[in-house]
Amino acid sequence: MGYKNSIQLTKDKKLRHFLTIEGLPRAILVEILDNAESFLTVGEQQVKKVPLLRGKVIVNLFFENSTRTRTTFELAAKRLSADVLNLNIATSATSKGESLLDTLQNLEAMHADMFVVRHALSGASFFIANHVAPHISVINAGDGCYAHPTQAMLDMLTIRKHFGAFADLNVAIVGDILHSRVARSEIHALTTLGVNEVRVIAPKTLLPSAIESMGVHVYNDMNKGLEGVDVIIMLRLQKERMDGAFVPSEEEYFNCYGLTEEKLRLANSHAIVMHPGPINRGVEIESSVADGKQSVILEQVSNGIAARMAIMSMCMSGIAAGEV
Amino acid sequence: MGYKNSIQLTKDKKLRHFLTIEGLPRAILVEILDNAESFLTVGEQQVKKVPLLRGKVIVNLFFENSTRTRTTFELAAKRLSADVLNLNIATSATSKGESLLDTLQNLEAMHADMFVVRHALSGASFFIANHVAPHISVINAGDGCYAHPTQAMLDMLTIRKHFGAFADLNVAIVGDILHSRVARSEIHALTTLGVNEVRVIAPKTLLPSAIESMGVHVYNDMNKGLEGVDVIIMLRLQKERMDGAFVPSEEEYFNCYGLTEEKLRLANSHAIVMHPGPINRGVEIESSVADGKQSVILEQVSNGIAARMAIMSMCMSGIAAGEV
Amino acid sequence: MGYKNSIQLTKDKKLRHFLTIEGLPRAILVEILDNAESFLTVGEQQVKKVPLLRGKVIVNLFFENSTRTRTTFELAAKRLSADVLNLNIATSATSKGESLLDTLQNLEAMHADMFVVRHALSGASFFIANHVAPHISVINAGDGCYAHPTQAMLDMLTIRKHFGAFADLNVAIVGDILHSRVARSEIHALTTLGVNEVRVIAPKTLLPSAIESMGVHVYNDMNKGLEGVDVIIMLRLQKERMDGAFVPSEEEYFNCYGLTEEKLRLANSHAIVMHPGPINRGVEIESSVADGKQSVILEQVSNGIAARMAIMSMCMSGIAAGEV
Repeated sequence: MGYKNSIQLTKDKKLRHFLTIEGLPRAILVEILDNAESFLTVGEQQVKKVPLLRGKVIVNLFFENSTRTRTTFELAAKRLSADVLNLNIATSATSKGESLLDTLQNLEAMHADMFVVRHALSGASFFIANHVAPHISVINAGDGCYAHPTQAMLDMLTIRKHFGAFADLNVAIVGDILHSRVARSEIHALTTLGVNEVRVIAPKTLLPSAIESMGVHVYNDMNKGLEGVDVIIMLRLQKERMDGAFVPSEEEYFNCYGLTEEKLRLANSHAIVMHPGPINRGVEIESSVADGKQSVILEQVSNGIAARMAIMSMCMSGIAAGEV
Repeated sequence: MGYKNSIQLTKDKKLRHFLTIEGLPRAILVEILDNAESFLTVGEQQVKKVPLLRGKVIVNLFFENSTRTRTTFELAAKRLSADVLNLNIATSATSKGESLLDTLQNLEAMHADMFVVRHALSGASFFIANHVAPHISVINAGDGCYAHPTQAMLDMLTIRKHFGAFADLNVAIVGDILHSRVARSEIHALTTLGVNEVRVIAPKTLLPSAIESMGVHVYNDMNKGLEGVDVIIMLRLQKERMDGAFVPSEEEYFNCYGLTEEKLRLANSHAIVMHPGPINRGVEIESSVADGKQSVILEQVSNGIAARMAIMSMCMSGIAAGEV
Repeated sequence: MGYKNSIQLTKDKKLRHFLTIEGLPRAILVEILDNAESFLTVGEQQVKKVPLLRGKVIVNLFFENSTRTRTTFELAAKRLSADVLNLNIATSATSKGESLLDTLQNLEAMHADMFVVRHALSGASFFIANHVAPHISVINAGDGCYAHPTQAMLDMLTIRKHFGAFADLNVAIVGDILHSRVARSEIHALTTLGVNEVRVIAPKTLLPSAIESMGVHVYNDMNKGLEGVDVIIMLRLQKERMDGAFVPSEEEYFNCYGLTEEKLRLANSHAIVMHPGPINRGVEIESSVADGKQSVILEQVSNGIAARMAIMSMCMSGIAAGEV
């Protein structure tokens, strides 16, 4: 198997780290979705707990602040009965001159079991996974522009719950593809799960140069791109892009690439609207669409906890079961 | 029932939110006190836990910092075996431009069960309670100058433990009535529970204009106001009031409205002295009085955890039981 | 018994606070080590939990920030099934003008069971232990230049696991003895446990004046000091000392007192290298030595959780058992 999977999978092809969807076998993605569906009901029980990871120590290593993502990982861990340690890296020992690897080795020596890593640099979670002890699992909670694989899996769960299967679906991803770790992970997940077509809709300034090589069709015109699609995944427009060379103005961006009720009518009538949040109402999405009956944005949030529970518990049992 | 109770109570008249004491039936207040008394012993057990809220997710939504109040809610929740999520709203998604309602809906989608809300604006907890999903309970941990109902209930518990009943008691509330959410909630609780007389003692600059309409007697002279009282509730003087138009100087305030041993002798000999904390020694209360044998200030703190356990568990069972 | 032990021990000579190693009977230290060894395996179990402190509330009172030490105490507490409250004192009620003693009394009224105290002032933990209620235990997690007794005990555990006994050992402590609370606690522990010889190796500017009275031999020349030693305890050089009157330059310090492979060969061939962390690679220790086969630095970290579990559970059972 390739370099990435040689890190992510055990010799028995079980998941042990979850860093990127690129290259993961379809069977692993389907197993994640199946497990996540079984966890979906846990959140609705009177006692929202399963004892799968009791006594395990999960360390949230957030080098980049993200209350929302950290919260969903923390809730997922607690529903699995794990203990959670939130480390604010900026104020910890690394600020005393200790190297990142020394910090990691210290956490390993404290018998941590899993690192959930958020970092501004692409590849940071791979770097960490390459250096941890064999009993540690690393989960990528978003690194740079590279990958956000748990977001992609919760979106796949949302799609499967609505349509049952992936084979006939046309999916459009709209917005800042260039800087989006979400977009990259979605594309890998959608192509691996075998949808009919993946489209990316964006201005040229927000598209990576060789994006077609990922197996997608490019549209610069949103009206054309939405025709006949079943799933619309809107991306968040980072405020810091809005005043630069990338986007002429918030208004013009909304006119061309904001999802309005009018544009939504170009898609199939049963199409669902997704967004990883937090949403900028009136920038990338019209308020009435975000709150409308085709929106599944809040379902994504609920599905996010179940998907993360599935991934965490699979990684832990992968390590427990096997030669690594 | 009135507007406030139509929000706070289920159709079966069970508590489902706890936002203000104004308008709550006396039976509900008595039920809170009875439950709180049964929880008082939990803090003294070897294992300080009851499993009533196991698996429930309680979110501390503190828009205004208060380590002490947050800590008592956190301990109350943990003693009920709930999971607690502390959100620092200033650094969370709302700072990325997300609206408060979007943040709330996200937390609901994560299957939160209760929001404990602290906010600088009066009415904030009502606003939130008006917008949450039916399975969510909201508890007001202090909003603006409006209400701090859990503080009032822990004080009622403290009074009842000392005197057994409310009917014969004269209670004086002393200090900055104008800006005090504690004072408003105390007055509603005391009149609902039927004490003999509620007095407020304050300079004119620290009294709301129509305070008599709440059923209290106003005293500007502390010596007269303390005559024959059984309970003295001192209010905290906010440092930011001391240099303004409200209070001429710390010394003069202490001379007129600080509780000294000398003034305390004007009250009944069995009178108890209360303060919500943190206390300013030498500003609103003499040190020897705060530490004296009539002071029940630390009992209030212990009672605070029991009272909050009672309110939290009643709200959760109100929602579980009923049509909402 | 002396002043210090009259605070630290119950009348039955059980541990109730853990503030300093100075004056503690050898039997207590051996009991800590024996208990810690039994806890060492807990970290390696599938479920890393023992129910000894279930329902107990342990408050981390960190007046001085230390993520690493706080984390090990938090993990130790969670493995004992206790509830942990992390208080950032800088932002809590003390900043509203409340005195430290009022804050402590409030936490006692909330039925806290243990304070883990980190403070920049020497003696702070004694001050607190002198003022807490009888049911509260205080553990010193490092105060000023005075003591860091849990660090010393985890180091004793590390030494005993490697050599089995203390009697024949020569131990060198190298570096900034003057400002090191770790050094003071190590010296007391080593002499109480009866090693053959304790040496301190440091420039004159980094030695307290009457250090020989603690029963150690002083070396200014590291080469001479390392001859024939079995254990080398390197101290961290605080960055703030490097530019002052204490150390001429980082390079010169490393030349004279940094532990290199070459200098390590002067010690006995089976000697172990210890460091409390976080390490400054290339300042007080050569990277290849820190990562070398004689280094036990990461074992110290693992042992730190077991040692703290032992101390916490002994203090709690000392209070539960006895007259205090």
